[in-house]
Order: sequence, then structure tokens, then C-alpha cells
Amino acid sequence: MAPVSLDTINPKVLKCQYAVRGEIVTLAQAVQEELKSKPGSRPFDEILYCNIGNPQSLGQQPLTFFREVLALCDHPFILDKSETRGLFSADAIERARQILDQIPGSATGAYSHSQGIKGLRDAIAAGIEARDGFPADPNDIFLTDGASPAVHMMMQLLIRSEKDGILCPIPQYPLYSASIALHGGTLVPYYLDEATGWGLEVSELKKQWADAKSKGITPRALVVINPGNPTGQVLAENNQKEIVDFCKKEGLVLLADEVYQENVYVPEKKFHSFKKVARSMGYGEKDISVVSFQSVSKGYYGECGKRGGYMEVTGFGPEIREQIYKLASVNLCSNISGQILASLVMSPPKVGDESYESYSAEKDGILSSLKRRAKTLEDAFNKLEGVTCNKAEGAMYLFPRIRLPEKAIKAAEAAKTTPDNFYCRCLLNATGIVVVPGSGFGQVPGTWHFRCTILPQEDKIPAVVSRLTEFHKSFMEEFRE
Amino acid sequence: MAPVSLDTINPKVLKCQYAVRGEIVTLAQAVQEELKSKPGSRPFDEILYCNIGNPQSLGQQPLTFFREVLALCDHPFILDKSETRGLFSADAIERARQILDQIPGSATGAYSHSQGIKGLRDAIAAGIEARDGFPADPNDIFLTDGASPAVHMMMQLLIRSEKDGILCPIPQYPLYSASIALHGGTLVPYYLDEATGWGLEVSELKKQWADAKSKGITPRALVVINPGNPTGQVLAENNQKEIVDFCKKEGLVLLADEVYQENVYVPEKKFHSFKKVARSMGYGEKDISVVSFQSVSKGYYGECGKRGGYMEVTGFGPEIREQIYKLASVNLCSNISGQILASLVMSPPKVGDESYESYSAEKDGILSSLKRRAKTLEDAFNKLEGVTCNKAEGAMYLFPRIRLPEKAIKAAEAAKTTPDNFYCRCLLNATGIVVVPGSGFGQVPGTWHFRCTILPQEDKIPAVVSRLTEFHKSFMEEFRE
Repeated sequence: MAPVSLDTINPKVLKCQYAVRGEIVTLAQAVQEELKSKPGSRPFDEILYCNIGNPQSLGQQPLTFFREVLALCDHPFILDKSETRGLFSADAIERARQILDQIPGSATGAYSHSQGIKGLRDAIAAGIEARDGFPADPNDIFLTDGASPAVHMMMQLLIRSEKDGILCPIPQYPLYSASIALHGGTLVPYYLDEATGWGLEVSELKKQWADAKSKGITPRALVVINPGNPTGQVLAENNQKEIVDFCKKEGLVLLADEVYQENVYVPEKKFHSFKKVARSMGYGEKDISVVSFQSVSKGYYGECGKRGGYMEVTGFGPEIREQIYKLASVNLCSNISGQILASLVMSPPKVGDESYESYSAEKDGILSSLKRRAKTLEDAFNKLEGVTCNKAEGAMYLFPRIRLPEKAIKAAEAAKTTPDNFYCRCLLNATGIVVVPGSGFGQVPGTWHFRCTILPQEDKIPAVVSRLTEFHKSFMEEFRE
Repeated sequence: MAPVSLDTINPKVLKCQYAVRGEIVTLAQAVQEELKSKPGSRPFDEILYCNIGNPQSLGQQPLTFFREVLALCDHPFILDKSETRGLFSADAIERARQILDQIPGSATGAYSHSQGIKGLRDAIAAGIEARDGFPADPNDIFLTDGASPAVHMMMQLLIRSEKDGILCPIPQYPLYSASIALHGGTLVPYYLDEATGWGLEVSELKKQWADAKSKGITPRALVVINPGNPTGQVLAENNQKEIVDFCKKEGLVLLADEVYQENVYVPEKKFHSFKKVARSMGYGEKDISVVSFQSVSKGYYGECGKRGGYMEVTGFGPEIREQIYKLASVNLCSNISGQILASLVMSPPKVGDESYESYSAEKDGILSSLKRRAKTLEDAFNKLEGVTCNKAEGAMYLFPRIRLPEKAIKAAEAAKTTPDNFYCRCLLNATGIVVVPGSGFGQVPGTWHFRCTILPQEDKIPAVVSRLTEFHKSFMEEFRE
């Protein structure tokens, strides 16, 4: 008798869903294996993973300066060798030395302080100050293995039972629904308005908040993803102010997912951190609780595999901070390479540094290319019959809406799946392109979408567009009534 | 009004304790700050952290080969440069190339498969096979950021409510009590027998199991830490067989903490993995569920800051494996440097490789030094009045028992703390030596202990011994009746 069965595991685990690595991705992996063992068995010869914000898996190159510093910190022994000067830039060598000086005993193989190495938190706080124009305290920084564990930590802290609600945008990044499910809380959805470019209306927040209250749910926190994932909108500052006021008034913790802060592609929008917005309104530590999540996985760096990130925790009393510290301590600390990288992305080379020019060229190259790709894909989607797609003002995704013929919806039903899932499955089977069905993010009932990253390298984009266009035409033909 | 107070957070978080980074460590950090700002204010000039298994923080050097490979994987750009051959060993260059070949697109900055990079799991499975003489399946390996997240994952999977019990040794590593508290389960204690060198008696397991059942608790899993933490015993193979049979009979998942598998210091004992023991008894996948935890933080490598590790999950059906995969996916993947390192510790240089000799010398140097330090400290503890200390057969700790005068116990009471905590506080204040009170690990009621690592470098050991001895004498004098 197996001691563990689906009937005897934690039902919260069963309930949790995570579409970004869900059914379609498993199917894609199987097709990939098939392509390896039977080349030519499909009308395409590679799988194009547009399901996940994982730039380097699709060929984006890491920033040279960042990697130089990481390599030197991994093997400080070579810092004093003459050959090293031929292999590494002078400012990378200098930065590695500075970082090693900040680490007790220069020991990059030691557990650090549970919040992360103090010197690196100093650098991050200075970077936040430079970005926002308001002070940041290194003691407010908790370095984490990417943003995901930070989100889990806050959910674990806040959620007592299914009576505790977390306001989440719909569509949302499924980390939030997964984490709320795992911690046994209730997701209180608020809908972004697709018609106004995924607008976040405070009236909608108020409505959903009141609705939750009327059901006996206590809303504890509001998740805002800005720039949006999967929706790509960048919030206007005035809108952010209204959101801050709403949280302040209702006593909600503002959980600000700001991991795409470097990814803004339209000149009329600018990223403003929620902490900056709150401070600019005159609200201090005692007025509002704001947690800002940042990650080395996004931006122009895209260092997903390094698992670096941090949360900046403001507006909590010392007794709560102690509890957060304890949660961080139970896992001892986040990985030191990720910690170093988090400090680097918040304090990159400056004008005058040897690496500055090459760094800027690499950075600008990536960001301007992302911008072009976003536009090309957006235009391509909008040309498809029955498809509309809002602009990606920021982040790394498009979330087109697809209007499917009744016959396709029936075919999905017959295949025991949702229409968006059915569409994505057909797309994968016909083209090798992997996207995530809108169901995984949430959508207005009766509407269907999918999320597609803008991350295939530029030389692949024409193929993506033509394969997608061709597929969509034949799909619509097949199911036309 | 602050939205969050101690009354409104998750009570499981409040309940969770983690002594390894608890009160004494916080106090030590304050004293360290004081030493910086007021040098000479204390009768010692440095804090000696013996509270945590963090070798590199105390000066242990990382293994050269491992760090060479990590640096090259961080910055593969230099692999083809001529200077690189002057800086790195040939087999490290070769190994880095092999590893990069196993990573899709050689992208060390990309999220990997949720279980970790397949090629690295192959290397780990081969290492387990070589160690055990029984097959290991790469699909059973889940790479994690150190062993702690793996333990949390299993607790999250298994614990449904406080009616689910996890059998844990007492004393135990407080990760277990913390994780059980956070996931809302019940810790079912079984006591190790200090009189027989921290023996693990199956009769005690049976007794506690029955006791839990009689209270309406469903025991779900048995945690065994071998070699022991904080107790340092290495289980005999026959003893392990009895434990396997007990788990099989009662349908318990065997959670085997095997992170100290390389740390065995006595010739008469040898490490045997629980999976090997189970297989050698003829028990296969269908007979027993065993999860083995391994970490890059321990052994002779001590790479705590890299946060690498894995769990080998055997004896679960595919439907449960899918749930574990989902839990791994919610955090996307563990950090790639840690993944690489986990593969390296399970497949280090071999006879004939350029680095083999220097690698062996470094490894043997560290392990033989740890063995000497364990013995020196054990002897020193046993010479103290009222102190007895079992041998550290393995792991990195001693857990001496201290018998305190009644007057000291009253003084502790007056100071509103436990006697072991009081003793450790006095020790810190008098000597700068940081150890963890036994209360943090659990101990037979009315007995008092502390955990002391064997990790200070050898040149510091005489000072540790003399400071400790001197302190203990004067403490006993002060509180003598």
C-alpha cells in the first residue's frame, strides 16, 4: 500500500494551478522529444517557447559586465593574476573586489545574513533612492531567490484561513493564484478593463472589495502588477495615487509586483514605484504598508536562472518585521550569486566606467529590440480575423483576445477542454509555437485569450508571425460555420 | 492604523521557531556591532560563530575545481581565450564545456526544467548509483535551493491539518519543527537515547507512533537525520533496516536527511543511504516511499551560500509525482549555479583528471581537520565539571549535556529564560563564543544542552577550548551552592 495518494495529500496542493508550466508546456516537451527521435514528423523543426518570460532560453545574451563580476566573485583566486586583466574589464575587477570586501571574510560560499549581505542591500537601497528620489533603508530589503519566494513569504504571513482575501487583478500572473491557493486564502478578483487598454479602475476595486466583505471575507492585501503581466499595461501616476489612497483607506497591504520596472516601451509612459508614489503623496512608514518585489529575471538582464531578487518592505511595525525575518531565516538565506546580481542591476556601470559604453550598448540593444518585437507581434495579432490585442506598453507579453467560431467551441467541448486551451493546443501541434491559454491567468467569463511572450529573437519573429497567421487562417477556415 | 499586527497575521508563523538564527544570534550581532564601535569594551575581540554549520564563514576555503567550473559557467565567453588556460585547470575547462553542452542553448541565465537541468540530474543519478550500487533515475531528482526548500515541499505535500503527524527525532534540526509548524502539522517526537550515543531505538518509534495514534493523530512520515544533527551519531546499517521495516509496516514516508553523508569521522561507521538499505532488503518502488535530501552546504565543500541541493523522490505514484512537480514549478526552478554545484559534488574529479590530486588533497585536508577538531572539542567538553558529551561520529556538531547548579537555574528563572539559554548567553557575553541552547532542538525535559559546531579553523580551536574552559569554571564557581 502506497502511503500517499491523491486522497491523502494536502488538498491545497491539489487545488493549486500553475499554467505557465502546465498542460500545454508538458505537451510541448513531448513534441520536442518526438522531433528529436523522429525528425520530420511534424510540419516544423523546432519548438518556440513563448509561454514564459525566459529571455536567455531563446538566445538573449547576458550582460557582459554582470557575468564578469559574477565569475570573479565565484573564483576570487584569479583576481590578482596578470592573465585576468586580459580577460576581464578593469571595472568588473574593481567591482568584484568591492563586493568581496562587503562580504564577511570575502566568503561567497557562506550563508549570509537572512536578509542578504548588508553591503549589497546598501547598494540596492542606494539604487532605489536614485530611482525614486526618496530614501530607502537597507534594513527594509530582503534578498530572495527570485521574486516568487518573496511573494510566498508575504502570503504565508498574511493568510490565516480562507476568510482572508487577497485582491488580485484578472488576468493575473498565476504565481498569485497558486500562492493564495497553497496558503489557503481566497483570491478576490478585480477585473482589468480590456477596452481601455487593461485599465485598473478604482471603482472596480471598491466593488470587489465590498462584494468580498459582504461574503464574510476580510481583504488583507491588494496585488498590483505594474507593468502588467500578462497584460503589458503601464499604470499612470494618477491612477497609482488612487490605488494608494484606496489601500490606505481600507487598511490593505499593497503588494506591488514591480519586476518589469525596466521594461517600458512607450514614450508617453514611465515607471513609478508605488513607494515613490506613496511618499510623493506625503504618506510615510506609519501611513501605508507597501511591499515592492523586484527580480533579476526580467528587465534587460533576463537572468532567470540566477534566481535573484528582493522585496522592499515598508510600513510594518518592528514586531511584524521580526516575523518576516524569521520566515526568511527558516531558509537561511538566498543564493549569493543572485544577491550579487540583484545589487548589480540596481547599481550598474556609470558614465566614466570602462564598461559603461559596452554595457549601455548591450542594454539599449535588448530594450529597443524588445520594443520592436512587441510592436511587430501586436500588429500581427491585430491583423488576424476575430483577434484584438492591446499594446504592450511594458513587460514582456501580449494577451490577445480571440473570438472563436461556435464550431471551435463545440470541438473544444468534445475534446473536454476550454476553447482557449483547444486553440493553443492546435497552435502548438501545427506550428511548434507554445503560448499559454488565458484560462491560466483568468479572463472575463465567455472571453478567450492567450499569453504570448515577445521574447523570440528578432530573426525568428517573421517566422513566428507567418506561422501564426497561416495557422489562424486555417483554424478559422476549419471551424467556420 | 497599521493593516497588520501580531493579532492579524497567520498564527502558524507566530508559532514557528528557528533557534539557529534566534535570540542568541541576534544578541551576538549586537555585541559584534559594539566591538566595532567600542573596541576593547569586551574581554574578547571577535565573535566566534559556532551556532551554524557555515564552514566558509569561519575561513574554510572552497574547493578550487568546483569554483573554477562555476566561474567558467558564469562567463563562458572566456572559455576560448588563451589566457584562460593559464588561469584554470584543463579539466575544469573541459567540465564547464560539458555542463554548458547539457544546458539548452548553453544558457546558464535561463530558467531550467522545474526539476533542474536534465544533464545535471543524469550526473547526480550516476553519482548516487556509484555510491549505493543500486540504480537511480534522473527523473526522481528534484534540484532545490539547498535542502531546506525540499523539506518544506514535502511537508507542504503531506500535511493537511494538525491531525497529521510527522515523527521527528528529539533533539532535531529546527528546520523540521519550523516547517511542521508553518504547514500546520503536529510534530510527533521520538527521543534519541543520549546514554547509548544518541541511539535511535525502534521501540521508541513504536511507542511514540502508538501514542500519537491514540491521540487521534495520523502519522504520515518519519524524519531521520543521518549523520545526526545536532547529535552527530551515524546509524548502523542494521538499525537502518529496522527503521525501513517500521516505515514500510506503518505506511510512513521516510524523509531521510542525508546532507552529512560525506561527514563521517570514525572508522567503524560508514554512511549508507536509506534508499540503498531499502533496496538491499529487496524493497522496490512499490514497497516504500523514501525521500533523500542532499545539500552542497555540508560535506567537505561547505558551499552554503550557493544554495544547491536536491531530493531523490522514490516510491510515489505518477499522480503524486505530478503534484510534487507542480510545487517545484510554482517557484520555476532552483538557481543554476547551485544546480551545477550539486552535480559537481556528486561527480567530482576522478583519478587521472588534472585536478584530481589537488582536489583530493583539499578534500582530505578539510575532512581530516574536521575529524581532529571534533575530537579536540569533544575531549574539552568532557573535561568540564558536570558536562558529558557524546562523540561526533559524523556531521559538524557536538551536543554536550550541561548539569547546572540549582543557583544557576534560579538565576535563569529570574532572568525569565531557560537554564540552557542563560548559560549560552553568559558564554557569549564572557567569551564571544556563540552556541545554540538545546531548547532550540528539543531535549529530554529537565536536561540541558547546547549545540556547538566543530567549524572554527584549527588555529582557533585552542583559544575556543581555553576560553570555554575558563568561562565554565567561573560560571560554576559563581553559581556554586
